[in-house]
Amino acid sequence: MAEDDPGLEKKRQLLAQLLRSEASKRDATGPATPERLSAHRELFAALQNKVYLNFGGQGPLPQPAIAAIAGAYAEIQRRGPFSNSGLGWMQQQMGRLRIAIAQELGTQPETIALTENVSLGCNIVLWGIDWQPGDHLLLSDCEYPGVLAAIEGLRRRFGIEVSACPLAGGSEAEAAPLVAEHLRPRTRLVVLSHIFWSTGGIAPLKAIAAACRAHPTEGPPVRLLVDAAQSVGMLPLDLPDLGVDYYAFTGHKWWCGPEGVGGLYVRPEAMGDLQPTFSSWRALPPDWPDTACWPDARRYEIATSAWPLIAALSSALALHNQWGTAHERYQRIRSLAIYLWEQLGHLQSSTALVRHQSDPPETGILTFSTGTAPAHLVQVLEAQGIFVRALPAPRAGVRVCVHYLTLKEEIDKFIAGLRQSLRR
Amino acid sequence: MAEDDPGLEKKRQLLAQLLRSEASKRDATGPATPERLSAHRELFAALQNKVYLNFGGQGPLPQPAIAAIAGAYAEIQRRGPFSNSGLGWMQQQMGRLRIAIAQELGTQPETIALTENVSLGCNIVLWGIDWQPGDHLLLSDCEYPGVLAAIEGLRRRFGIEVSACPLAGGSEAEAAPLVAEHLRPRTRLVVLSHIFWSTGGIAPLKAIAAACRAHPTEGPPVRLLVDAAQSVGMLPLDLPDLGVDYYAFTGHKWWCGPEGVGGLYVRPEAMGDLQPTFSSWRALPPDWPDTACWPDARRYEIATSAWPLIAALSSALALHNQWGTAHERYQRIRSLAIYLWEQLGHLQSSTALVRHQSDPPETGILTFSTGTAPAHLVQVLEAQGIFVRALPAPRAGVRVCVHYLTLKEEIDKFIAGLRQSLRR
Repeated sequence: MAEDDPGLEKKRQLLAQLLRSEASKRDATGPATPERLSAHRELFAALQNKVYLNFGGQGPLPQPAIAAIAGAYAEIQRRGPFSNSGLGWMQQQMGRLRIAIAQELGTQPETIALTENVSLGCNIVLWGIDWQPGDHLLLSDCEYPGVLAAIEGLRRRFGIEVSACPLAGGSEAEAAPLVAEHLRPRTRLVVLSHIFWSTGGIAPLKAIAAACRAHPTEGPPVRLLVDAAQSVGMLPLDLPDLGVDYYAFTGHKWWCGPEGVGGLYVRPEAMGDLQPTFSSWRALPPDWPDTACWPDARRYEIATSAWPLIAALSSALALHNQWGTAHERYQRIRSLAIYLWEQLGHLQSSTALVRHQSDPPETGILTFSTGTAPAHLVQVLEAQGIFVRALPAPRAGVRVCVHYLTLKEEIDKFIAGLRQSLRR
Repeated sequence: MAEDDPGLEKKRQLLAQLLRSEASKRDATGPATPERLSAHRELFAALQNKVYLNFGGQGPLPQPAIAAIAGAYAEIQRRGPFSNSGLGWMQQQMGRLRIAIAQELGTQPETIALTENVSLGCNIVLWGIDWQPGDHLLLSDCEYPGVLAAIEGLRRRFGIEVSACPLAGGSEAEAAPLVAEHLRPRTRLVVLSHIFWSTGGIAPLKAIAAACRAHPTEGPPVRLLVDAAQSVGMLPLDLPDLGVDYYAFTGHKWWCGPEGVGGLYVRPEAMGDLQPTFSSWRALPPDWPDTACWPDARRYEIATSAWPLIAALSSALALHNQWGTAHERYQRIRSLAIYLWEQLGHLQSSTALVRHQSDPPETGILTFSTGTAPAHLVQVLEAQGIFVRALPAPRAGVRVCVHYLTLKEEIDKFIAGLRQSLRR
């Protein structure tokens, strides 16, 4: 974690050199020459000694981000942990991160509240609506347990009605009409993942957002909250174009930032329907109490967080963009996922493996099941240095994630390890 | 931030040597020999180049804690950021921190929920009560703006009544009867700081908790939420003996841990009155949904946080205990505060300074006002390397904090800097 690690500096120089030599031939070869990816991967310590396919759980933290954390701790101690100088520096870091995140999401910094994780963003929205008994919340049948638990808390507290729309296994084209069918006169919120954590399927958000807007209600309009745990850092994104109201994300999965930094996008037109719930000094402008809270999305931020990690996420974002555009990264993820899907298909013909997707995947998340209990299989693979995750019932199985950082050889190693495990 | 910093190792050895040589003569001299404190202070980078008197804002982070953070990042990358091995290690770190915190507070680990900061703990309690319109919340007139903002949100959302009990400037003996006088038949929660952030006064919690328990209500009993931002790490504590219901604290002020790690104590008997509000996977036991949430205070934890910082707070706590007991640390804080109070008294006779406490202080927080605007004075002092903070209206002034880490010479330097500023 040393800032002055000479090995790190050498790697940086190597990467810079490769980037320069790539620049001229880029149009011809694309960004993914093996040499360049290899140099890029060397910046990720977690990728060096294992086959890491758990990006949907947590991404590997690049060395420049770790160095940024070390640098930030030193800077804060030098300036004074609580000081005008230190607080000014920290606010500058937060401002920069908001700009960097906004660029990735195609939006403005004022629409971004910084949080600690996806769940916090979801909870800010779930609890921020002025629920009345009998109001309706619609979710899909593929949502994450943490979100389900929060919604169950809401239901008990406010006496709202909750129902699930069966999107699992359906086609993308059917999704928006299906959501529209399940809306009710008192539906106030639709809660949906952009990419389903347990299937890797994509929800067609633009059509669903349009269906929500078009739906006539007895009261306020239907709002759309998106759990973006698996989409941010994987898909090229333009949130205003998608038309979603609230989009909760984290930096520590596909963006490979540090755990503990995430955010919430709030569409300006949807801010009026969302009161801050948990609240403290970060929501308050300098002229509080004359002004109750910030005019922008900072009103949803709460209190002290791990400031030194802010610079690390900015650093990770810069690193990804150095390697390629969001579109280029997604294209590579998708082609690797298709390769993995094909390999699983070959395995399917000779073992008890069931590949869950019948069509080629559109995201970097693939799931399958075997005769073996998923948790056991995952443990056996981890012992061989191959990292995937077990999914709980009702969609019990194994989840494999490929990133643009993934190598084809890693997929081959995973398939070989899996084949061996299934033969035992 | 290097783990292998030879200078750090040398400092550690020096400290260990001094601790050994102190052991025999400790009873005679107390723990605060100048040599030993000097070696101890060298572990705090932020104390080296300044007169730091802002412990109530944020404490300086000791080098062993910074090294623990670096070590944790390396460990997580080595084990696999999302892996059985990595998650197991992280849970072990959290378990250890819960034990260490519980020891400091005189309680059991099961009563401790880990949070990111004091405000989160306060919000968990404020929003966790099943408020009915017309219920009453009593607070003091010395509470922190962030807490006031959260309470204002509650009032708007649930139609509760909020009133303030005038504890500022009153004597400790009068406080409990005054609180009792302000309780109503429908009071459900009293919100109070243990040490007031803007005056340094101590609330006599044991008597106040007893008054709350003795109060007859129309419904559930009156619960007591304590904002412990300034008391944890300053006072020797035994929470079960105090009889408080909820005690929200942070590690990054008087405990000198990293920003972003704090906690909430929940008295087991008061857990039934407190539902989780913001919630996600950390609240859920392995057999969820059969069991709705953890049986202990973990039910109030939310989701992914900055795990690598957990070990750093454990490290900071160990360091303080190496130096002296909670009682010894508090005694030193108090004697330094009395010295500071006396020096301010001398200054009072020759300048426009008004010392806010008329009696010798009982805590490490002192406040005063001068003819100068506090924010300007604080800036002038910061430019000279002296760090204190400005307090906003209605108790506008300057706050100075002394820690057991503070030197008498630093107080002298502060007084000299202040004298010079007031003469200009």
